[in-house]
Amino acid sequence: MNQIPVAVLGATGSVGQRFISLLENHPWFKVVALAASDRSVNQKYSQATRWILDSPMPDYAKDMIIVPASVEAVQAKIVFSALHSDVAKELEPQFAKAGVAVCSNASAFRQADDVPLLLPEVNANHIHLITTQRKNKNWSGCIITNPNCTSTGLTVALKALDDAFGVKKVFAVSMQALSGAGYPGVSSMDIIDNIIPNINGEEEKVELEPRKMLGKYIESLVPPSSAGYDSAAGTPPRAFIEFADIKFSAHTNRVAVLDGHTVCASVALSTPQPDLQVVSDILRNYSAPESAKNLPSSPRPVISVREEADRPQPRLDRLTGKGMSTVVGRIREDSIFDIKFVVLSHNTIRGAAGGSIYNAELLVNEGLL
Amino acid sequence: MNQIPVAVLGATGSVGQRFISLLENHPWFKVVALAASDRSVNQKYSQATRWILDSPMPDYAKDMIIVPASVEAVQAKIVFSALHSDVAKELEPQFAKAGVAVCSNASAFRQADDVPLLLPEVNANHIHLITTQRKNKNWSGCIITNPNCTSTGLTVALKALDDAFGVKKVFAVSMQALSGAGYPGVSSMDIIDNIIPNINGEEEKVELEPRKMLGKYIESLVPPSSAGYDSAAGTPPRAFIEFADIKFSAHTNRVAVLDGHTVCASVALSTPQPDLQVVSDILRNYSAPESAKNLPSSPRPVISVREEADRPQPRLDRLTGKGMSTVVGRIREDSIFDIKFVVLSHNTIRGAAGGSIYNAELLVNEGLL
Amino acid sequence: MNQIPVAVLGATGSVGQRFISLLENHPWFKVVALAASDRSVNQKYSQATRWILDSPMPDYAKDMIIVPASVEAVQAKIVFSALHSDVAKELEPQFAKAGVAVCSNASAFRQADDVPLLLPEVNANHIHLITTQRKNKNWSGCIITNPNCTSTGLTVALKALDDAFGVKKVFAVSMQALSGAGYPGVSSMDIIDNIIPNINGEEEKVELEPRKMLGKYIESLVPPSSAGYDSAAGTPPRAFIEFADIKFSAHTNRVAVLDGHTVCASVALSTPQPDLQVVSDILRNYSAPESAKNLPSSPRPVISVREEADRPQPRLDRLTGKGMSTVVGRIREDSIFDIKFVVLSHNTIRGAAGGSIYNAELLVNEGLL
Amino acid sequence: MNQIPVAVLGATGSVGQRFISLLENHPWFKVVALAASDRSVNQKYSQATRWILDSPMPDYAKDMIIVPASVEAVQAKIVFSALHSDVAKELEPQFAKAGVAVCSNASAFRQADDVPLLLPEVNANHIHLITTQRKNKNWSGCIITNPNCTSTGLTVALKALDDAFGVKKVFAVSMQALSGAGYPGVSSMDIIDNIIPNINGEEEKVELEPRKMLGKYIESLVPPSSAGYDSAAGTPPRAFIEFADIKFSAHTNRVAVLDGHTVCASVALSTPQPDLQVVSDILRNYSAPESAKNLPSSPRPVISVREEADRPQPRLDRLTGKGMSTVVGRIREDSIFDIKFVVLSHNTIRGAAGGSIYNAELLVNEGLL
Repeated sequence: MNQIPVAVLGATGSVGQRFISLLENHPWFKVVALAASDRSVNQKYSQATRWILDSPMPDYAKDMIIVPASVEAVQAKIVFSALHSDVAKELEPQFAKAGVAVCSNASAFRQADDVPLLLPEVNANHIHLITTQRKNKNWSGCIITNPNCTSTGLTVALKALDDAFGVKKVFAVSMQALSGAGYPGVSSMDIIDNIIPNINGEEEKVELEPRKMLGKYIESLVPPSSAGYDSAAGTPPRAFIEFADIKFSAHTNRVAVLDGHTVCASVALSTPQPDLQVVSDILRNYSAPESAKNLPSSPRPVISVREEADRPQPRLDRLTGKGMSTVVGRIREDSIFDIKFVVLSHNTIRGAAGGSIYNAELLVNEGLL
Repeated sequence: MNQIPVAVLGATGSVGQRFISLLENHPWFKVVALAASDRSVNQKYSQATRWILDSPMPDYAKDMIIVPASVEAVQAKIVFSALHSDVAKELEPQFAKAGVAVCSNASAFRQADDVPLLLPEVNANHIHLITTQRKNKNWSGCIITNPNCTSTGLTVALKALDDAFGVKKVFAVSMQALSGAGYPGVSSMDIIDNIIPNINGEEEKVELEPRKMLGKYIESLVPPSSAGYDSAAGTPPRAFIEFADIKFSAHTNRVAVLDGHTVCASVALSTPQPDLQVVSDILRNYSAPESAKNLPSSPRPVISVREEADRPQPRLDRLTGKGMSTVVGRIREDSIFDIKFVVLSHNTIRGAAGGSIYNAELLVNEGLL
Repeated sequence: MNQIPVAVLGATGSVGQRFISLLENHPWFKVVALAASDRSVNQKYSQATRWILDSPMPDYAKDMIIVPASVEAVQAKIVFSALHSDVAKELEPQFAKAGVAVCSNASAFRQADDVPLLLPEVNANHIHLITTQRKNKNWSGCIITNPNCTSTGLTVALKALDDAFGVKKVFAVSMQALSGAGYPGVSSMDIIDNIIPNINGEEEKVELEPRKMLGKYIESLVPPSSAGYDSAAGTPPRAFIEFADIKFSAHTNRVAVLDGHTVCASVALSTPQPDLQVVSDILRNYSAPESAKNLPSSPRPVISVREEADRPQPRLDRLTGKGMSTVVGRIREDSIFDIKFVVLSHNTIRGAAGGSIYNAELLVNEGLL
Repeated sequence: MNQIPVAVLGATGSVGQRFISLLENHPWFKVVALAASDRSVNQKYSQATRWILDSPMPDYAKDMIIVPASVEAVQAKIVFSALHSDVAKELEPQFAKAGVAVCSNASAFRQADDVPLLLPEVNANHIHLITTQRKNKNWSGCIITNPNCTSTGLTVALKALDDAFGVKKVFAVSMQALSGAGYPGVSSMDIIDNIIPNINGEEEKVELEPRKMLGKYIESLVPPSSAGYDSAAGTPPRAFIEFADIKFSAHTNRVAVLDGHTVCASVALSTPQPDLQVVSDILRNYSAPESAKNLPSSPRPVISVREEADRPQPRLDRLTGKGMSTVVGRIREDSIFDIKFVVLSHNTIRGAAGGSIYNAELLVNEGLL
């Protein structure tokens, strides 16, 4: 069977390494190029990379020669972008213009009006925004993005609750893993016997991104009021996302955990004080939209509900469903809002590389490549 | 100068060790007895104890012979209780009956109608509840308690805010230190590269205890409706605490930190959206009631406000004011309630042993011993 | 195909859990009984066990009802023993007498004259000691043991070196993982921001056990001078192990690592100052004896040699060869002895449960069951 | 009383911060200048510095304006150098030439023939090497150095043993703290649940530096054969150090400890197999040379001997003697050499900033400033 040629941009960093690891033996995709910054170009991947995962570097990548992250050097139908946001801002549109589908983990375009911010198990239909995007930009390729890793698990859980009960307000306090800060990231001297009660820019993302993903895909001739994105002048978007009317308040913290972001959430619902067993069943039985259900990276289950008093725990539960499942536990009544719970998601698998790959699979499955 | 003879009950455990360390060279108190469970009795303190503090065991304690935790064996005017709650329930009243002032870190009587739950910098006047207690019980001694360690710093910060703006609702998510679980407490295999998103019974305490401490001391002939405490039948309390009308929702977590509990708090106020600089000044300038201001263990400052984007941090800030200060940082607007911030308090100093000693100093200072 | 019925003794502890995990889908063995102490008996395994591995509890075990660790209750051809040494001392001979092959991780009988102390890739032929054992004891079953987890990787590396160069003296300093102490084992308060420079009884084992494993299997009518084991009086052993004439000096330490024991070793050889590339090749190319080469649990490779300046590292390398390989790195000249290096081995897989299973496979393969 | 004006070069880094902290309220020295690299110059110290110690930044330093590390900008009699070795190589001689006493923690000149490598409690008399240094270089100032932090505690212990028994060979395996790598130093992702079995260049230092410090100060007209140092041509050194004839073999490791280097040592003596109680007494009773005994930073005691089976431990014992004492424990027979033990020293206090300050005090006390 013919595999689709793909490339990884930013291949030597921590998210890039996850891409390379997760793409080993992928049934649909074949890695044909690894791109990184100038000082790595022309080196073998194994020489240029300080591999930090506990699974070994895949053999296929070891001897690949790193190329520049340019349209000329990278010949692929899909590129997975683990670029820094400022670099992504410049390079990703070049690839999209050149006919390449960019599945990006960078934050640069997440809030652009015509760029889907996707969690396929939540809002697979938002992918159709790229039709508008292609018209707006006159691109044959496209840019699709996955959210910030802290928003990921929270949004999956909220989607199930929103469908069943309506979500109105959310307090979310995160305890985030070190791998979320990249490598080398957080100094050991800053985190051993310590926590850092702040992550720059993270609270804003957690308060905004879920609202887009939980929003409605609307086809219309009237464009939404747009900010921060330079839509092609005079070309009205044909479709847009109406943000969900949910209020979020977030505190984000860094803790001494290697992988896996944990979020404590308190949620106000339109249906007050639901039975907790019903809440638990709603979460456990939540299933992805049809188009996102049976892809190679589809989480199985979408949501794992733990009944124990002290779960989920990042070290024990982050690899549930090969790191793609959202794990929820400690569902209980909230004394101010309606319910509260703890949600865990693997930040570099579901929350980063695995998420981008899942997005790419949806793109292929929908015939939009 | 004549020092007051004091004793420590539960002297070998982690809180007991803090008592012994903090009482070294205390200007008012002299440790005359160390009591512990049967298997330690008759041993030298240095033999019976696995000392876990990083300051050395004080010389005065090393050769003291451990006695049983009984009224007969312990001859002191004040006993500091680091007993387990079930043992405290039985023993503490015996000491109070025998004329001893029990300054307890145990939770057994915190919610009793006529037992003060004290943070001197917050509610020093509640100490007068012991007059009612003595009448009710016909005791010449008394029991006074300090709150759960997670409530401590939060309540100090809320007191300053309540005085200035009125506090209505509080979301609080804790990241708690290992020493809060005693020794040996949490297995290393459970917490390295991990968090535990639950601490048994803790959320209930955090949702209840601050309401008592922020409540009003009321003298009255009409008793409050009482639950869970067997007041001497037919003897109406002469004074009681009217709980503050504040709603709390708490999530409590254990993290890989040795000492220092960190709490992320979002607070709804009666005065909406106050200027953040004013909030910061209110906290920084908060001072203890007159009677609690100049005691040996008075926190100096009561509240330390950090301006940095990433403080307080437990390892760096827990020893502020010799571990007695409450440290607040990251004061900012909350998008659901009014303000949010991070508060840190040393759990075994301000939140346990140091708190009990501060209570005892207030008792002496008020002439109530 | 008919699988051999096996049981796990001490099934709820940390080594017991590894047995249950590693025996899932084993091609030769089928777990038919799980035995544990009285307070777990008659409960479902999933109820009685606080599962601490990051892979989920195998489905097959969840609903098995725990039985007592007695010959009557456990019907199996092979029992894997994760018992404490004092319990093992009493129970393991009962099983052996009843015709069961006991593959033990306990230390109770490791130094008995007629009990093989086995690392199949090192001394597979020592398994024939059980023929003598059966004669001595009149047992139809047998007891075979695997060594202390710290000795394991070191002995594998020394075997390759001893074959090639002759080993005379070994300095070994370990940095051992927390899982080696069982669960709950080491308190988090003792090991965060700390090391513990002692493990009771461990140095003695590291200085003695490799000498038996690197020793010669000798058939003889003359028994060796025996100590510490009560051979059946009047029945001379027909075979025995002549301990290797190697001097060991060991320091053992506990560090904040979850799994994987690291040992720094300096080695004096009979062939002084060998070329380091030759040493590296000897280690890399070492292969197990024929009978131990192609078993289901055979390490592949036996020894992985790392060329990087800073490997092996426990977190990155402990799962090499599914946790059964020995990983060696930093091979360099020693300025007092001849060479020095670092060796890593997964302490609960190769060094405990995986080792016992490998031993059982050898037993079956040799037709000795 | 007139205090001596001193300055800190490299004031913003981790060792620089220790200097500033330890020099607060120093009885002899007054900090008059803080120097750092260009990007910090002209800023207030509190603005330019990310303070990482758990004691607060001293008030005296907060508003000092950082100056360049040049002879012109820094007006002081003594400069404490926390410079990187390559910068130190260039700058330190400029200060010495300008009449300033440079007390350096850098490695640049430790092995220069006429530069004392000093631990005052070990080899205070070596300080007289600066007389030769001044003649050789025609300097009115001087350079004196303290050793690598891993050598420090080991050398103190060996000095006591060498005096009593003669030391011939030493195996040393270190488990070193993160602060030894500076800040930010080791990535948290590299050390949590892990160790790193290598520190670049460290083993060579541990194998060489103690030999100089344990060597003899010899006055002579005949220079030693010199390597690696450009003595002024034609000017024979008047004094030199004859290195001790001791063989060292070192393995160095990084572990997840914040402060405090632990070393496991096995030692061969000229007097074989001494009584262990005598060894313990020799260490406990070791006292510094007269000139180094009563200085402000003199360790009290020089060596603390722990009798417990599991001490020293870095978190519990590193602050012994305000971090200046060497702590020894687990003294026992070695089965290859004569004795073995564990030695602990605070790497950024005794092993760095505190050591340089102690050296400066000796310099003043000897009238050599």
